Amino acid sequence: MNRKVLELIRARNFQAARAALLEERNPVDAAAFFDGLEPEEIVMMFRLLPKKLAAQTFSYMVPEVQEKLLAALTDAELRPVLESQFMDDTVDMLEEMPANVVRRVLKLSAPDTRRMLNRLLQYEEGTAGSMMTTEYVALKKGMTIRQAMQYLKRNAVDSETIYTCYVTGPDRVLEGVITVREMLLADDNALVGDVMEKRPLLAATGATDEEIGQLFQKYDMLALPIVDGENRLVGMITVDDAVDAIQEANTEDFEKMAALEPSETPYLKTSAFTHARKRVGWLLFLMLSGIITGRLISHYEEAFAALPILVSFIPMLMDTGGNCGSQSATLVIRGMALEEIRLRDLFRVMWKECRVSLLVGAVLAPVNLLWIWLCYHSLPVGITVGLSMMVTIFLAKLMGCLLPMLAKRCRLDPALMASPLITTVVDACSIFVYFNIALRVLRL
Amino acid sequence: MNRKVLELIRARNFQAARAALLEERNPVDAAAFFDGLEPEEIVMMFRLLPKKLAAQTFSYMVPEVQEKLLAALTDAELRPVLESQFMDDTVDMLEEMPANVVRRVLKLSAPDTRRMLNRLLQYEEGTAGSMMTTEYVALKKGMTIRQAMQYLKRNAVDSETIYTCYVTGPDRVLEGVITVREMLLADDNALVGDVMEKRPLLAATGATDEEIGQLFQKYDMLALPIVDGENRLVGMITVDDAVDAIQEANTEDFEKMAALEPSETPYLKTSAFTHARKRVGWLLFLMLSGIITGRLISHYEEAFAALPILVSFIPMLMDTGGNCGSQSATLVIRGMALEEIRLRDLFRVMWKECRVSLLVGAVLAPVNLLWIWLCYHSLPVGITVGLSMMVTIFLAKLMGCLLPMLAKRCRLDPALMASPLITTVVDACSIFVYFNIALRVLRL
Repeated sequence: MNRKVLELIRARNFQAARAALLEERNPVDAAAFFDGLEPEEIVMMFRLLPKKLAAQTFSYMVPEVQEKLLAALTDAELRPVLESQFMDDTVDMLEEMPANVVRRVLKLSAPDTRRMLNRLLQYEEGTAGSMMTTEYVALKKGMTIRQAMQYLKRNAVDSETIYTCYVTGPDRVLEGVITVREMLLADDNALVGDVMEKRPLLAATGATDEEIGQLFQKYDMLALPIVDGENRLVGMITVDDAVDAIQEANTEDFEKMAALEPSETPYLKTSAFTHARKRVGWLLFLMLSGIITGRLISHYEEAFAALPILVSFIPMLMDTGGNCGSQSATLVIRGMALEEIRLRDLFRVMWKECRVSLLVGAVLAPVNLLWIWLCYHSLPVGITVGLSMMVTIFLAKLMGCLLPMLAKRCRLDPALMASPLITTVVDACSIFVYFNIALRVLRL
Repeated sequence: MNRKVLELIRARNFQAARAALLEERNPVDAAAFFDGLEPEEIVMMFRLLPKKLAAQTFSYMVPEVQEKLLAALTDAELRPVLESQFMDDTVDMLEEMPANVVRRVLKLSAPDTRRMLNRLLQYEEGTAGSMMTTEYVALKKGMTIRQAMQYLKRNAVDSETIYTCYVTGPDRVLEGVITVREMLLADDNALVGDVMEKRPLLAATGATDEEIGQLFQKYDMLALPIVDGENRLVGMITVDDAVDAIQEANTEDFEKMAALEPSETPYLKTSAFTHARKRVGWLLFLMLSGIITGRLISHYEEAFAALPILVSFIPMLMDTGGNCGSQSATLVIRGMALEEIRLRDLFRVMWKECRVSLLVGAVLAPVNLLWIWLCYHSLPVGITVGLSMMVTIFLAKLMGCLLPMLAKRCRLDPALMASPLITTVVDACSIFVYFNIALRVLRL
């Protein structure tokens, strides 16, 4: 489909391309077509779309395509598109745009919209304030359900969701929440104030996107009211934006756990230089730790000069230690992100990891002892490696659970304490343990 | 709060405990109280809850608590709880229960419910069929909007969501979707068939939870119809369940990427033995690869016997290679999970990783050359390590992007090709490269 439209455009058969685009009708898929077109093709195709679909499609386009349209379209073309876009989508878009584009969008907006956009743009990125929309339905306590439904009918077009409505008092103070379902089930003459939930779940403008995601996940909501310090309703976050927030938080954790500085730009849209910049810092830091492990090894030069075979077990010990540590760290970091593990569980977690490491060691250590005995016919070397393996696994599992929980305790992101860092710490420990056991068992 | 209720229960002050529980009123939080209580306390507290809250709370309890209640409550107490629970929640619960509990629940259910539950239980866990609920609102094309709204009013209690309604023809074939918003905006006398979306997004019963999560994330839906092979409507998935599916898919990826067999049970609820079992397989496999790397090292025994300092750079080279590989693998795996990277992008990704590895190497290699020169006053050793670093980074980044994409190409889960596996492969390569460069540069 995508390819077909592209070929039609390249052949300058715009009417057929338009027909093919219209067949899709879904703005998400329509927006995807525009990614990868040449600038002038983007503008031509956009002008071919019917007004309503064009406006919907615009919201789902990637920032690069939006920027090209914002530069090329006339004021008269742009105004209806911007007016029909929901406030939170416009804010998301403006956060990605250069200053001159932001100025143009603000100039084209109606005074009310402009005021609102200016306010929303002041909230820090990644907070509830910058995620929320101001296009909610606000009802009054004194309305009857019938009046409320009529109000809804008149205002449904302009609101991002109508299924959750907010009841506000003087000064926009949030008094309650009422859903369309509750309205349908209630008597038409009942008062909104009597039907509404009076103590709804809410969040502050400063809540992080991770916290917002957790609330939605835990309480199965469709929308969440956002209030300021005086409990005044300033906006609402809908579940589709919460899903995006959840995925962004997950991506950030994946990146941090792989020793990457988090990035919000998709992989292919990031330049090689930026990629390198986001990776090199951690690599340098971890390389320095590797150097320390190396210095530690050279301390035991006499040992492996006497018995060179000792060197060949280093990679296996280091790898297994690193893998054991990252297994534990991943489980603990994920468990804390899902709120399944709390800080007060520290000792339960440590106790569990101790037992797990003994069980795992009881499998891995004998295997080592056995193959070394069979291959090298040396029981002492087998005992040295098996024993070192046991201790390494124990230390790795303990550090794997301890470091992320300590990070959380110090209000750092636990994800920073993941595999790469633990691997390097465990490496040094395992080398130290290994050679000390070797010196004693083998009497070197 | 949790603690207060617990203390009141322990002091056998059940009335005060009940009052404290009622203050909360949110079934999610109420359910959390029960986790950690003694079996007899669970049953006592549950009996103290008002009927409606008790039924809602039951759905959100962890399986262990549900099982205790299912064993202790009488038929008369259990029936209303089970009847008010949504079908998909009952199915999720039954999937965790022993056979005798499943039999009792089925016996207590009304014949219609029982038939439906039996059918839903046949779908494989993790597919759309086992996630969906059958409690949707089905309308007919010929209804007017007014009739449809009245139908909604009468049936709102029994449906999991009413905001998205399905229009079905003879034999339950799905003909369209209509939302409450569209109904409110439409004329009361218009026909459902004229207002509805005729080509809605849908999924088959066999779709995986990952696919369902991706659909919701991409198209910002509140509910998705599920159809069988003949396009007959068999159920619906709501966004709250899709959020759970998204998080489960993420957890699975985290686990696979840390060389863990995926598990659905929370960390603390899993026994040490099960934890060990889920970890030891990959550890054994990766240990064997470590052994191969070790055998490779012993091939170069003469080299490091002549120049023992060579051994001390092994950890740094191995660590950096592993970290570089896992950075690339994580970005590619995550990019594919979010559909930002597709298989056809293989060469673009490889080309980007090549450039990134040159940039990263251009920073790391000179740093190595410099410190080795300063510390050991040997330029040839510095050149050896710097050059090996360069090649290792290049190989690691290339394998980091190549292996996950090849896995996807072979219809394997790309997450399996993450850090641990790549680390071990890169280890062997870096040792090989390092000693071969050393032999040539240092003429050993």
